[in-house]
Amino acid sequence: MTSHSTPDVDSIDALVTRIREFSRERGWEKFHDPKSLVLALVGEVGELAELFQWVPADEAREHFADPRKRQRAAEEISDVLIYLLRLADVLGLDVGAEANAKLSDSARRFTAEEFQGRAPEKS
Amino acid sequence: MTSHSTPDVDSIDALVTRIREFSRERGWEKFHDPKSLVLALVGEVGELAELFQWVPADEAREHFADPRKRQRAAEEISDVLIYLLRLADVLGLDVGAEANAKLSDSARRFTAEEFQGRAPEKS
Amino acid sequence: MTSHSTPDVDSIDALVTRIREFSRERGWEKFHDPKSLVLALVGEVGELAELFQWVPADEAREHFADPRKRQRAAEEISDVLIYLLRLADVLGLDVGAEANAKLSDSARRFTAEEFQGRAPEKS
Amino acid sequence: MTSHSTPDVDSIDALVTRIREFSRERGWEKFHDPKSLVLALVGEVGELAELFQWVPADEAREHFADPRKRQRAAEEISDVLIYLLRLADVLGLDVGAEANAKLSDSARRFTAEEFQGRAPEKS
Repeated sequence: MTSHSTPDVDSIDALVTRIREFSRERGWEKFHDPKSLVLALVGEVGELAELFQWVPADEAREHFADPRKRQRAAEEISDVLIYLLRLADVLGLDVGAEANAKLSDSARRFTAEEFQGRAPEKS
Repeated sequence: MTSHSTPDVDSIDALVTRIREFSRERGWEKFHDPKSLVLALVGEVGELAELFQWVPADEAREHFADPRKRQRAAEEISDVLIYLLRLADVLGLDVGAEANAKLSDSARRFTAEEFQGRAPEKS
Repeated sequence: MTSHSTPDVDSIDALVTRIREFSRERGWEKFHDPKSLVLALVGEVGELAELFQWVPADEAREHFADPRKRQRAAEEISDVLIYLLRLADVLGLDVGAEANAKLSDSARRFTAEEFQGRAPEKS
Repeated sequence: MTSHSTPDVDSIDALVTRIREFSRERGWEKFHDPKSLVLALVGEVGELAELFQWVPADEAREHFADPRKRQRAAEEISDVLIYLLRLADVLGLDVGAEANAKLSDSARRFTAEEFQGRAPEKS
């Protein structure tokens, strides 16, 4: 698959491959060391946070029902995802398998009975 | 699909559904307003950044070849991904389609010819 | 002034100097290149965000009236401040003068009349 | 002191007061609940990270010797500082005293002998 073909939008692996090709075609691999990618991820998380910062908490969902605002949120979430998948790829991680393993682990640690309706405390 | 069945680890949609079920089973939807989810995402990005902060930039890739460190990176990347997908789900966004659309848009704006070997400047 | 003497707690410059001495005494200057310091700052911002993530927005102020929680917030805000001042110092910036200049600039751009009660839109 | 008088640029307290006045004059206190301020801080940290992301780690210091880039870094560091001090003020914290207390605590935990030339491990 290249970045020109119709992508399988539901496949993590297809998205990872597409981002890898996109980077390779532009000769951008040289920028993509892990620390730089974490900083790029932080930059996009910052742009995402800016969309939400002054919206009253209980109006946030309806605020983003507006098509233009919804589109902006979609773009920033996408940018975060793209750098996150690129980082995982550079580290040689299968992020889909890892995220599913993490959820299985969390399901064991935070049982529905013990943690019903309450958030785990951060130490 | 519930969070108990064997997941399709390569499907974004299956992962989103699994996270949704995980949250519903614990009654955690009440915590998952958009601003709180962005803050939770920031918390996990912080834990990811901590793994990289003092590693010399040119040793970062080999540093994470160590199995224990690799496992820690996989966990933190997974946590970021889980909150990011949860945020997109709460906003009603199809994040796979959106990320692919964003890549198509970037491919048009940053042509391989014009941006060969150089990063776009942030304004 | 060394890090052992009684500090002038209200002086930015005294705090910057104390952090510089603290780093020098431990031979930590070698870790403090700008990108690493930004990542360390991000790590502390993440710890700060975690304290707030699941607290209902309209209860946050009273939540942190609790002495133990207040203490945790004070520690994380301090950690963010320490890395921020260290970064400015490494870049040779007089952060007190710069922040005051930025406020003067903002006062000109966002006049009290034009921006009364409304937040500037991020482009 | 109001935001119009000549500020004492080295005083944390004067800077906190100036930011408080700036917010009050524009009727922006209503936006400044703690969670919103943390998100605003994250937005500015993101803008700071973007300045550094693609700069090779060992060229970062000289990169910011360029006056225009230095000015951009000064502005973003100032924005982070302003939101951090505003957050501390809203929580009723004396951030200068707290940061000095944190440094005293760190000096006890990380003695120059034991931690000479090596960074404390994050658990």
